[in-house]
Formats: sequence, C-alpha cells, structure tokens
Amino acid sequence: MRTVQWDEQNKQVQLIDQRLLPAEFKVNSYDNFRQVAKAIREMVVRGAPAIGATAAFGLAAAAYQSPADNVVALRADLKDAAEELQSARPTAVNLAWALKRVLAAAMGASGGVAEVRARVLAEAQRIADEDVALNQRMARHGAKLIEDGDTVIHHCNTGALATVDWGTALGVIRMAHEQGKRVHVLVDETRPRLQGARLTAWELEQYGVPYEVISDNAAGYFLHSGQVQKVFVGADRAAANGDIANKIGTYMLALAAHDNDVPFYPVVPTSTIDLSLAHGGLIPIEEREEAEVLNLQVGGVSVVPEGARARNPAFDVTPHRLVTGIVTENGIVYPPFEVNLPRSVAGSA
Amino acid sequence: MRTVQWDEQNKQVQLIDQRLLPAEFKVNSYDNFRQVAKAIREMVVRGAPAIGATAAFGLAAAAYQSPADNVVALRADLKDAAEELQSARPTAVNLAWALKRVLAAAMGASGGVAEVRARVLAEAQRIADEDVALNQRMARHGAKLIEDGDTVIHHCNTGALATVDWGTALGVIRMAHEQGKRVHVLVDETRPRLQGARLTAWELEQYGVPYEVISDNAAGYFLHSGQVQKVFVGADRAAANGDIANKIGTYMLALAAHDNDVPFYPVVPTSTIDLSLAHGGLIPIEEREEAEVLNLQVGGVSVVPEGARARNPAFDVTPHRLVTGIVTENGIVYPPFEVNLPRSVAGSA
Repeated sequence: MRTVQWDEQNKQVQLIDQRLLPAEFKVNSYDNFRQVAKAIREMVVRGAPAIGATAAFGLAAAAYQSPADNVVALRADLKDAAEELQSARPTAVNLAWALKRVLAAAMGASGGVAEVRARVLAEAQRIADEDVALNQRMARHGAKLIEDGDTVIHHCNTGALATVDWGTALGVIRMAHEQGKRVHVLVDETRPRLQGARLTAWELEQYGVPYEVISDNAAGYFLHSGQVQKVFVGADRAAANGDIANKIGTYMLALAAHDNDVPFYPVVPTSTIDLSLAHGGLIPIEEREEAEVLNLQVGGVSVVPEGARARNPAFDVTPHRLVTGIVTENGIVYPPFEVNLPRSVAGSA
Repeated sequence: MRTVQWDEQNKQVQLIDQRLLPAEFKVNSYDNFRQVAKAIREMVVRGAPAIGATAAFGLAAAAYQSPADNVVALRADLKDAAEELQSARPTAVNLAWALKRVLAAAMGASGGVAEVRARVLAEAQRIADEDVALNQRMARHGAKLIEDGDTVIHHCNTGALATVDWGTALGVIRMAHEQGKRVHVLVDETRPRLQGARLTAWELEQYGVPYEVISDNAAGYFLHSGQVQKVFVGADRAAANGDIANKIGTYMLALAAHDNDVPFYPVVPTSTIDLSLAHGGLIPIEEREEAEVLNLQVGGVSVVPEGARARNPAFDVTPHRLVTGIVTENGIVYPPFEVNLPRSVAGSA
C-alpha cells in the first residue's frame, strides 16, 4: 500500500502510522478532515510530498463529509477545511501548494454538489499519482549512478514513507536494487529523530536491500577507509546556486564525502528547488523542541542527567561546492548549478 | 574519590562504574586481574589514561593474587596477566604503556616476592598520581586558549571520568571555568555510547559549567553559523605527524571546524603520542559490538526493526592538517607536528 491513499468504498483517507514503525505496522483511516489535520500535526505522516497528498485527500474527505446541499455552501466548507489543514504544518510548502490546487479544482468545477466532490477527489488523486510517477522518473535517473557492488551511505528517511510512494534518495537505491544491481546501504541512524534507524532500515527490510545501521558519527570512518562509493541524500529545499538544506548532519556528511573524493548526490524534485533564493544562507532553519535530543533511553534508563538542556536545529545547509550532482526528475544536474539548475526546473536538463 | 584508585586494606582496584551514570553512582571493587580486564573490556572504566591506571592497578591485583612463592614464578604470572589486560582494549596505547612500566618495575625489583609486589603497586600508584598532576598541568596550558565568553564544542567524555582525575579536554574547560572565565559548552552526545550526553553533561553539572547537549549531527550547523569559538577533544592515540585517533565522529567534527576556520585542539598527554607511528593510518581501529548501535530506545520502544544489523567502529583518525594545535602537559604544540611533537614528548615544547 501507499504511505497515503484514498479508500473509495468508505470515502476515507488511509495513512500508515509512522510513529509506530518499526515496532508496529498500522493503517489509520480518517473520514473527518479535522482528524486528518491532527494526524499531520502529530506526524502520523511526515515528508513534504506525503504531507501535500494527505492534505489534498483531507479536502476530499471534507467534501464528502460536508452536509451542504448546494455548491456555494460546499465551496465555503472546503475553504474552511483548507484553512484548518494548512495550519497543521504552517511552514510546509507542499501542503499549501496541494490545498491550492484542490481548491482551484473545486472552484472551477461545473455542475452540482456531486460533481464538485468528484472533481476534488480526482485532483487529490492526481496529486498523489503525479508524485509517484515523478519519484519513479527521478529514481531511474539516479539509479544510473549506482554500479553493481556499490556501498552507499544514506541519511535520514527519504523513502516511500516520506512521499506517496517510492521516495527520493531511497527511491534511487530501491530502483538500482530492482534493476538487479547489488547495492549495500550504510544507514545513518540520523539523530535526533532517528528516521534512518527507524524508517529507512524498515523500508530496506521490506525491499530486501542489504543494509547496516551506523551511528552518524561513523560515516567519516567508512568514507575515509574507502568502503563507500557514493552518498545519497534528500533535500528539504535547494537554492538557485545548488546549496542544499536538508536534515541536520547532511553538511558534515558532505564534508567527509568531499574530503575523500566520494561523490555526493542530493536527490531533489524540481518542486523543492527554490530559484528565488540565491543561496542557502537565505533558507530559514527550524529549531525544534529539546525533548527530541533529551528523550533518549538505553535499557529503559534516561541517558542525560536530570535538568539537562539541549539545542536542536532540524536542518543544516550543505554548500554547493560539496555537491557532485543533483538528481531531479528531469535528469542529473551538474555544476555550475546556478546555470544548470534553472534549466532543470524548466524541464530541459 | 578518583575514577580509579587502589584500596590498600583489601588489595583491590576500585572503579566508578561509568555504565550506570548519570542515573546511579556506584563503585566496584576487584581483587582479580581477570575481573579488571573484563571491567576494561565492558567499559566500567573508559578513557585512555583511566584505562592505563586501571591496567596498572590490575597488575598490582595480579601480584597479590598470584600464589607464586618465588620471584621467577611471580614475574611469569605478571607477564601473563599483562597480556590478558592488554587484549582488553587493543587500540589504547596508554594501556600498553602502563603495563610496560609496571612490568619493568617488577623485572627491576630486587629482593623477594613481597618486594616485587610492593614495587608493582608503587609503580601503579605513581602512574595514577602522575596522571592527576599531568592533567592539571595540561589544563593550565590549554585554559590559556579559552577567552572569556567563548562557546566551545566538546566531543565524547574526556573529563575526570576518562582519567584518574581532572581530565584532558574537559579538564581544560574546567580549568578555564575555575579561573573565572565564562565558558559555554555544546556537548556532542557522542553516539553510539553517548559518553557526552551521559558523562560529560553529568560532570559539567557537578562543576557548574553551563552547557547544552547537541546531537553530533548538529555540530556542523553551530560551527557554520559562527556560534562556536573553539573545539576541544581528547585522543586515544596520536601519531608522530600529529594525526589523531579519537572517538568516532572526531574526524567529521574536525572537518566542520576546519571548513569554518574554528580552531580545533586535541588535548593529548605525551604518553598518548606514539612516535613509532609515522601517521594515523597505522593505528588499528577497534570495531565494537553491534548492540551499542542497535540498543537505542525512545519511550521504552526499540528504535531499529527486529533483525537489523549494524557496523560500529569505535574510533576514527583525524588528519593533522585539520589540527590547529595539540595541548600537552609540556605546552601547546603547533605545526609542523613531525618536528614539534617529538620535542614535546622530550619535554621541551
């Protein structure tokens, strides 16, 4: 099943509950858009593309949930629902973009209430399907970079669970595996939220791709000792010059790859490339709650002393000088990025 | 009490059980050198100088434990014990050095079994006392590098708990604090064993030095954003050219410091400098058990999926080109290290 999908029979949004993985695989169903907003807020679902599709299906749920018996009332209900869904993760760009698309479909629909509902659902479904198709295209481009027998390092979770299906950087690895190439993954556990150890390891387990979990600290050792042929990461936002904002730790990983001449490839859909930003220094960095650093346990016992404080930046910026190439759905973009990235966004890479 | 000390009345080695900190403060006593070797292997005690003193006292325990009724037999028992103690942590150069010193004392002793035992214990005690005095000297040299108001990053635990008392890199920070300088510490949690989050945070809490715990991944962000003035780390072994083997993650931390022109200072007693090694590539790197990576819990639930595998190198090598200066008990050594380090070891730095 997909990370997020529509249950046509029951008119419900279905989400894999990622908070419970890998201990438990559970699918939650929601027929109420308020529940969907809550699920987004509480990170049942995560990853920008997955959140966008979830919000779109949340509007579809709102359309079927609405008691409106005329189009004007239905559209008003949809606008209210969109506002509430938007507030669930106010900084998520894909969320706003998906809601806008679905609302526009509702506004443009002719016919009665049934037609508007159908148009809303169809647009949400299209957003989800487009995401899958785009990720597969990107994965096929990226898979060309992987040679039979490669060991690669992967940071955070960028797989099917971060998208509707298939994923970005992890999609590249999965595609190479499905093409019959032997690929071994060193999985950065990715402190503090441990998306690598929790989610990427679980996905690789499902795909049958051999992997080993490493502490983020160990990446430098494996790169320096010649045991790694490539590094693949995702991106939360890319600037016009090729600077990459991604999960905290990506910058140090890129430094270690660069210091050992190991190619470093962010896998980035063009929708994530923000040409309005000249460089990565303009990307705002979210600092999250201390508990994500401090809540660690070993053997049921808290690690830090009582009263300990923490700092918790969620992202860092990797300068483009450390980036070998950027994999997009339109092909692999090489330096100079400030020239070649805009071409890729225009679809001509 | 000291991290490691000799209980004269019971002829026992006493160790603070560092595996239980910060939740519990407990002192273990050992009268059998095999138990001491086991304690070293299982990291009841850790940190190169503390391991060295522990092994030395372990030989003292072996001397009193031996049933030998003549000096030849006692020396043979001591040699066997030294071999077993040595194998507990093969990367630790202080361990070999301390064992060699105590064995030499045993070989050089005149008189009977009682005299040899007394000489062995006296030499072990001397190693412990010298370590404390040496660390204080080193801390005074290093504290000159810290200016009032500095924020520093510190990796792993290099404090009193890593030595007999006082510490290396953390001793420098503590000394600056005791001299009245305001110093703020960003504490790398130091996966996989989390010695930073567990032990360094606990020590800083005792000393009253302000600190915040960060995930190791976050160091690059803080260095890049200009929030850090210096980085201090310890070392498990240094080569003649200034290459530094230290806790896994040190290399990536040094890369990030270097990339942002932030001074990077290993604090290294000269006993840790191995002039017989031309460069760090000759230092053997211990790979430890997978469980240290895989045993993580959040909210009482295991993080990794069942059946997950891991790789767990305990150390990496930081090339000397990333090292600003090496703090020793004889002063601060600057490049070219291959010229200046031997002078420091000879006491003339």
